[in-house]
Amino acid sequence: MAASRRVVIALGGNAMTGPDGSATPGAQRQAIAEASAHIADVVASGAEVVLTHGNGPQVGNLLVKNELAAHVVPPVPLDWCVAQTQATIAFTLADELDAALAAHGLPQRTAGLVTRTLVDARDPGFAEPSKPVGRFVPREEAERFIALGQYWEDRGERGWRRVVASPEPLSVVDRPAISTLAAAGYVVVCAGGGGIPVVDDGHGANAPRHALRGVEAVIDKDLTAAILARDLDADTLVIATDVPNVMVDFGTPQCRPLGRVTAAELRQHAAAGQFARGSMGPKVEAALRFVESGGRRAVVTTLEHIADAVSGDDVGTVLTAQ
Amino acid sequence: MAASRRVVIALGGNAMTGPDGSATPGAQRQAIAEASAHIADVVASGAEVVLTHGNGPQVGNLLVKNELAAHVVPPVPLDWCVAQTQATIAFTLADELDAALAAHGLPQRTAGLVTRTLVDARDPGFAEPSKPVGRFVPREEAERFIALGQYWEDRGERGWRRVVASPEPLSVVDRPAISTLAAAGYVVVCAGGGGIPVVDDGHGANAPRHALRGVEAVIDKDLTAAILARDLDADTLVIATDVPNVMVDFGTPQCRPLGRVTAAELRQHAAAGQFARGSMGPKVEAALRFVESGGRRAVVTTLEHIADAVSGDDVGTVLTAQ
Repeated sequence: MAASRRVVIALGGNAMTGPDGSATPGAQRQAIAEASAHIADVVASGAEVVLTHGNGPQVGNLLVKNELAAHVVPPVPLDWCVAQTQATIAFTLADELDAALAAHGLPQRTAGLVTRTLVDARDPGFAEPSKPVGRFVPREEAERFIALGQYWEDRGERGWRRVVASPEPLSVVDRPAISTLAAAGYVVVCAGGGGIPVVDDGHGANAPRHALRGVEAVIDKDLTAAILARDLDADTLVIATDVPNVMVDFGTPQCRPLGRVTAAELRQHAAAGQFARGSMGPKVEAALRFVESGGRRAVVTTLEHIADAVSGDDVGTVLTAQ
Repeated sequence: MAASRRVVIALGGNAMTGPDGSATPGAQRQAIAEASAHIADVVASGAEVVLTHGNGPQVGNLLVKNELAAHVVPPVPLDWCVAQTQATIAFTLADELDAALAAHGLPQRTAGLVTRTLVDARDPGFAEPSKPVGRFVPREEAERFIALGQYWEDRGERGWRRVVASPEPLSVVDRPAISTLAAAGYVVVCAGGGGIPVVDDGHGANAPRHALRGVEAVIDKDLTAAILARDLDADTLVIATDVPNVMVDFGTPQCRPLGRVTAAELRQHAAAGQFARGSMGPKVEAALRFVESGGRRAVVTTLEHIADAVSGDDVGTVLTAQ
């Protein structure tokens, strides 16, 4: 295929955490090194690669630090935590991926861009935050943070847990810089954790943006990947996760993996409640949105399969319009 | 002057902290908003601007969080802390500077790049860490971190304080991506805190870099700014600080501000011990290194004067070769 294929790869948590979900620096580096070998295979196939990634366990760790040091250092808002995870993951990815690219004899190098994603200040998510983040704490502790304006929920025996808004991503503010770097031959790491959520206090989503401000929220990274792939005119959106295929009728004797599937078929499965809200649901929704908005192809599969998934239709769940 | 002038501006702590040195999110945002107005003036003058910045108080806060949460979340290494401050400062700068640029009717926008700086694993700084970072703690607490491999020093009555290596910056690993973005018209925020320190486990500083690894160190941001300005072929390196001029004979009746000065003259003043090691010393050294390595002009002055300092020789301490 032509060297001009552009591929957006969304890395799931397993690309950046240990097998037990641990987000220690060592576990992250090890997982990222393994992921980098597979990403380099995609670059070696001639594709222009833009990478985005999740950050759930990493943000969880930062929130714990916020809490436990709050009596000495003022906690930083959630948008700052997202930013922090973008940088640590981007530079570790850059170190490991640069090494993997060099091992392939490839000239490309990695660039990590701090990336903001625009959300609507009137998104219903802000009025009723519902996305749980961070650890469980006793009520007395939660009350200290509620006093600071945070939302926490009583989760029964396990304690209280913070809930935050998870607004819809509207556009990736820094998309033009991503395009510039990708066109110049960089593998761009961007929009980590769905992007740093910002709202426009100026003139609304479609006006020139000149009053952006970070907000306390987290954005689904797969949904951001879908609009990023759309706006970058990517040929393929790859959602890398820990299973080789999307499954239907999971947990029943009829359980089966989806291979090639049309958007209409997958929409039907989704409407029938086939995909769990917190896990496969957003991945399927992101794949659907990309293809429904004109994208050629979306693939959901494991890291081990991403290079084959970019080159052919034989592995993973492959979604096309028709 | 021509629109192709390239200027590297190194922002000091006062561009990112409150008047009392506070690094709370609100204080940082306020200081950055004020700095952004002055930076936009430089862009409006037709210069291509690359920004770098310090991160001392911000890293200090992260180290406190590391300490106080260490029993729940494993501390992250210092290179990760530097990365974290790059992202929070870059996106806040991007929000505020984009607004300031739009207010000038300028088309340029800001891009924040996660940036690594190469240091030598054999730098003497690693054998004898001497740069103090973070807060003072009692001996028992320090001993917990010494057991993890950190260096801490007994500072007498105030307690123990961590000391880290401050190696010489050799090159900015991500300089090519900075050039790409600057040439495409972005105001690039990069190499924050002197850059994330990495060493090359592969083939040494002058070989293809393909085994980079973050190390526990902090790099002087002004010294990194000097090599960045040199390698970007910048016309002017501006070191923005909290005084309008470098002073000589400070604290004596002969005290006077330096205006236009040659590298030879400033070297003499430095050799005579005129500049304090922890404050003006590294700024003067960075300005000298830039001009001595072929740079046309280096200026040390306040944020309020940076636009005038880029356009003319009438404000600040202006260093030229002859």
